[in-house]
Amino acid sequence: MKVRVSVSLKNGVLDPQGRAIHHSLEGLGFAGVKDVRAGRLIELEVDDSVTDEALDEMCRKLLANMVIENYRIERVAA
Amino acid sequence: MKVRVSVSLKNGVLDPQGRAIHHSLEGLGFAGVKDVRAGRLIELEVDDSVTDEALDEMCRKLLANMVIENYRIERVAA
Repeated sequence: MKVRVSVSLKNGVLDPQGRAIHHSLEGLGFAGVKDVRAGRLIELEVDDSVTDEALDEMCRKLLANMVIENYRIERVAA
Repeated sequence: MKVRVSVSLKNGVLDPQGRAIHHSLEGLGFAGVKDVRAGRLIELEVDDSVTDEALDEMCRKLLANMVIENYRIERVAA
């Protein structure tokens, strides 16, 4: 089973990477972009026996920095 | 309108970051993880007038490296 973990910065946390992307998009002439936030995407291939609790613990212990980041876990049909 | 762009490495492209995460998860005692791939998540806040074609062009010109990466664009209801 495939699991998709999205990790993004919490609101209010400064995001220099997102600002740089935003600035570059404007420099390339793309109009209508109001804000850009950069995050990470981690795709796991796991056994069906892996529980939601285990996935949650992986995020809290390793994949996300809970001080400044939020995470979202999605199970994707194989 | 919020747009979520997921950028992930193409199959076959070596992913040292994903391997490091996989290794760390095993080191922490998590069983059942078969593979890990690391990617990027870019969340854009755009005007409703921004077309799918413009978003596609943003990805091809800046957000993704088309040689080694795939991208997926999702419009999220505001």
